[in-house]
Amino acid sequence: MPMERTKEMTSVGADWDKFYTAEISSKLPFFSREGRLYDCLFAQQLTRELLKQLFKTADTLRAVTQKKAGADFVSGLLSHKRGMLYFVQPSTRTFLSFLNACHILGVKTSEIRDTSTSSEVKGETPEDTVRTFSSYVDLIIMRHPAPGFVEKAAWLMNRTGRPVPIINGGSGKDQHPTQALLDMYTLYRSFNGEPDGKKIVMVGDLKRGRTVRSLSYLMKNYKNVNLAFVSPKEFKMEPDILEFLNKHSIPYTETEDFSSVMREADAIYMTRIQDEHDKAGESKKVDYSPYYFKKEHLKIIKKSCVIMHPLPRRHEIEPEVDTDPRAMYWRQERNGMWARAALISHIFGVDLKIKP
Amino acid sequence: MPMERTKEMTSVGADWDKFYTAEISSKLPFFSREGRLYDCLFAQQLTRELLKQLFKTADTLRAVTQKKAGADFVSGLLSHKRGMLYFVQPSTRTFLSFLNACHILGVKTSEIRDTSTSSEVKGETPEDTVRTFSSYVDLIIMRHPAPGFVEKAAWLMNRTGRPVPIINGGSGKDQHPTQALLDMYTLYRSFNGEPDGKKIVMVGDLKRGRTVRSLSYLMKNYKNVNLAFVSPKEFKMEPDILEFLNKHSIPYTETEDFSSVMREADAIYMTRIQDEHDKAGESKKVDYSPYYFKKEHLKIIKKSCVIMHPLPRRHEIEPEVDTDPRAMYWRQERNGMWARAALISHIFGVDLKIKP
Amino acid sequence: MPMERTKEMTSVGADWDKFYTAEISSKLPFFSREGRLYDCLFAQQLTRELLKQLFKTADTLRAVTQKKAGADFVSGLLSHKRGMLYFVQPSTRTFLSFLNACHILGVKTSEIRDTSTSSEVKGETPEDTVRTFSSYVDLIIMRHPAPGFVEKAAWLMNRTGRPVPIINGGSGKDQHPTQALLDMYTLYRSFNGEPDGKKIVMVGDLKRGRTVRSLSYLMKNYKNVNLAFVSPKEFKMEPDILEFLNKHSIPYTETEDFSSVMREADAIYMTRIQDEHDKAGESKKVDYSPYYFKKEHLKIIKKSCVIMHPLPRRHEIEPEVDTDPRAMYWRQERNGMWARAALISHIFGVDLKIKP
Repeated sequence: MPMERTKEMTSVGADWDKFYTAEISSKLPFFSREGRLYDCLFAQQLTRELLKQLFKTADTLRAVTQKKAGADFVSGLLSHKRGMLYFVQPSTRTFLSFLNACHILGVKTSEIRDTSTSSEVKGETPEDTVRTFSSYVDLIIMRHPAPGFVEKAAWLMNRTGRPVPIINGGSGKDQHPTQALLDMYTLYRSFNGEPDGKKIVMVGDLKRGRTVRSLSYLMKNYKNVNLAFVSPKEFKMEPDILEFLNKHSIPYTETEDFSSVMREADAIYMTRIQDEHDKAGESKKVDYSPYYFKKEHLKIIKKSCVIMHPLPRRHEIEPEVDTDPRAMYWRQERNGMWARAALISHIFGVDLKIKP
Repeated sequence: MPMERTKEMTSVGADWDKFYTAEISSKLPFFSREGRLYDCLFAQQLTRELLKQLFKTADTLRAVTQKKAGADFVSGLLSHKRGMLYFVQPSTRTFLSFLNACHILGVKTSEIRDTSTSSEVKGETPEDTVRTFSSYVDLIIMRHPAPGFVEKAAWLMNRTGRPVPIINGGSGKDQHPTQALLDMYTLYRSFNGEPDGKKIVMVGDLKRGRTVRSLSYLMKNYKNVNLAFVSPKEFKMEPDILEFLNKHSIPYTETEDFSSVMREADAIYMTRIQDEHDKAGESKKVDYSPYYFKKEHLKIIKKSCVIMHPLPRRHEIEPEVDTDPRAMYWRQERNGMWARAALISHIFGVDLKIKP
Repeated sequence: MPMERTKEMTSVGADWDKFYTAEISSKLPFFSREGRLYDCLFAQQLTRELLKQLFKTADTLRAVTQKKAGADFVSGLLSHKRGMLYFVQPSTRTFLSFLNACHILGVKTSEIRDTSTSSEVKGETPEDTVRTFSSYVDLIIMRHPAPGFVEKAAWLMNRTGRPVPIINGGSGKDQHPTQALLDMYTLYRSFNGEPDGKKIVMVGDLKRGRTVRSLSYLMKNYKNVNLAFVSPKEFKMEPDILEFLNKHSIPYTETEDFSSVMREADAIYMTRIQDEHDKAGESKKVDYSPYYFKKEHLKIIKKSCVIMHPLPRRHEIEPEVDTDPRAMYWRQERNGMWARAALISHIFGVDLKIKP
């Protein structure tokens, strides 16, 4: 259960630079209200208990909306709310997923998907732009390339007389909490429960992949999870994550040999090479093909092992794998929409109205 | 009535290249379900019987939505559905027409109108992109420049465990079935019934105009229709259409002299020069002005003759003609919205719920 | 109360050039119907009586929509209407404000925010483009860079058999009536009534600022308003406005010294330098800093004085001022949404259904 925001937090919050560099755990109360998330900014806000509750809501949402009457009921829950999708960075998947999550709940939506239409051209500060958006809507879902920008927007909002909740749809290189949410939801559905005791293999460009980093953080919530990191030596998981895992006594192994861990995996999380972050063409120098999941691997992995991928993919998973029932990546996308709908319903406090 | 999809069809469907090059008539069952269109891809799917049914639905939709209670009823019919407009090619008219058709029926909409915001920039295949879209919505309306791409998307969808219907909003140079649908609907409304026995004159760049080609195909459905093709010799109707007409014993004449056929026409279908398809400036070498409809022609044509144009126009019809009651082109646009709404309601099987 | 459109007006309206150059007051009946605004094009349409009515509606809208039941009631009022936002010029604020005003009333919306997706690329005239849009919707909200274009669109529409109302969201350099509407609404709310007898100070680039010009026009509606224009000598208010004020016996003063008028002001209307209208870098030659509102000024101005700004701002108001209760500019934005919702409800004749 998120802690209440206290007077002290609010005063600590008065200086942005101080606030920004503080430990994330110390900031969390600032972004919660009435025992619920108010802003969703960090994977660290997603506790075991909250995740369980959100997954239950997501499951119920899917079940209820199967029938027209249920879908109409759900789309009346937030029919009095207006949301804004402010996506400065291109993103099809996350954008559509949030947009349709809003549609499911009846939230009316405005979109800014491009800065060229924005007043930024007239010299407005990004802070003023966000405040302007908040004048018209009840919720802002934001994707922004600048690290910390989404957090700053939420911090600013919370210090005004008329704040609106902000959901982080991807901010800078680090935080993309709803991706972690949907990845965990996919594990949860695949395992028919929480991932305690499971072996999870993450494969590919672990150094620069935001999703595998966030997902690793979330493992703190569970017991006896065993991680294996499979990557070319150039793209190994960064030391900060390994330290985090050590600190929380989460066992992990590192290897360049995919086949060595395939057999025991309960879930395999594939990722593409993040060459948009190249500084000097380093991706081209690496043979990435040992980090592909091929049709022939289907015979090797467990019957119950699930294959995940945040998508888009390039060649990391052969299209022939798509028809295997263990291929979860398309369902993973769809899970994202439902998990995000659950999150929005939670923020507005209507999640408990969604009943089977 | 569309045929049921059979096991055999599904197996024939297993190889895309084989499927794609098969006769269209043999493919139709693959895109139908429960006696209804599932995907709308080809003008060839629009049988006389289906057209009649769709036009009746469209007429009823317009009547019912005149009053607020009726409009609210209709916009509740598909309030539990989410649609996606995926328009890779620019298109104002078709886009707005479909979007507002969705609004009429209560379908909630997502838009992709530009590939630059899409994951295609991250190296995703178009097939994966479409599958991603289908994760979030219940219907995809698609316009794409690549010939066969929309069909392939529908074919792929139908082979997954969670297909969604696909409507072709214009694919490549050839197929634009809902344009043919709205053109025929306009004839139907103008003639107060089906166009049996009517003389229809098509004028302009017939060689490269997609609309006149599709409309010619649809004439197969009717009796004793008489076609006249009026064009400069450089832009005559292509032989494949003439062969088709011969095969189905549909009489036609060809001429360069517009005035020679104006007098007997029951409908005149004007088109602009398609110079975006020029290879070496061939449009500039042609005097297109004999293929303009001028104010003075209003005195020549029948009192009941209707003037159509798929729009946008340039100079093919003088603006002074707009106020004549026989000028149908603005109503033709509006007919498109209603006919498309009828089509969507048909695909989701709610058309019969729309009653006067 | 707007006058009825008469037969004569309609015939006067037959020649656009004649119509366009006529006195605005003589045109007003052409854009009204059944005692209400039909098109909203000019600040001159906003009479004292109409403004009062719109402000009352806006106040009631805000109150009623505080509760879910009220919000749902209001969003049912125009649920049978479809609107189009046709914004050829970039505009975040006005766009979002109108879009969310539509959402509040349940109007379903289509957007064109960029001419590159439009048929204009295929050689269509702007008049045909607008007529096309009108085929699909019941209302067009339009922003266009060409002076007079929005008016011409409304004029054209009114001469067809199926007109739709047009709201001017900013046309050319001159007319932006809903900005004047929201500015006046902000004064009205700040003064708890009409601005009779108040001293209003307008500051900055008055020469090229559209908002201060429109607001000055509206002052004609009120008694004993006193205006002060504060600007660098290069950007003084234009003679046409000063003549207008003289003609209507509205007292004003002009000064370059902001501090000389600050103390008595009941409202201070700040504006940014309009350097996008520079012809030869004239903005850079001016020291604009004497026309900034600074934190220290808060001690000088009246306790009841309100600070306004149409936004976006650059440096004209120090961010430290934002937390002062007299800073009205964020509320001014929000007022815009409500005032526009009131206007739309008035045009469709449902404003009187909105009751406390």
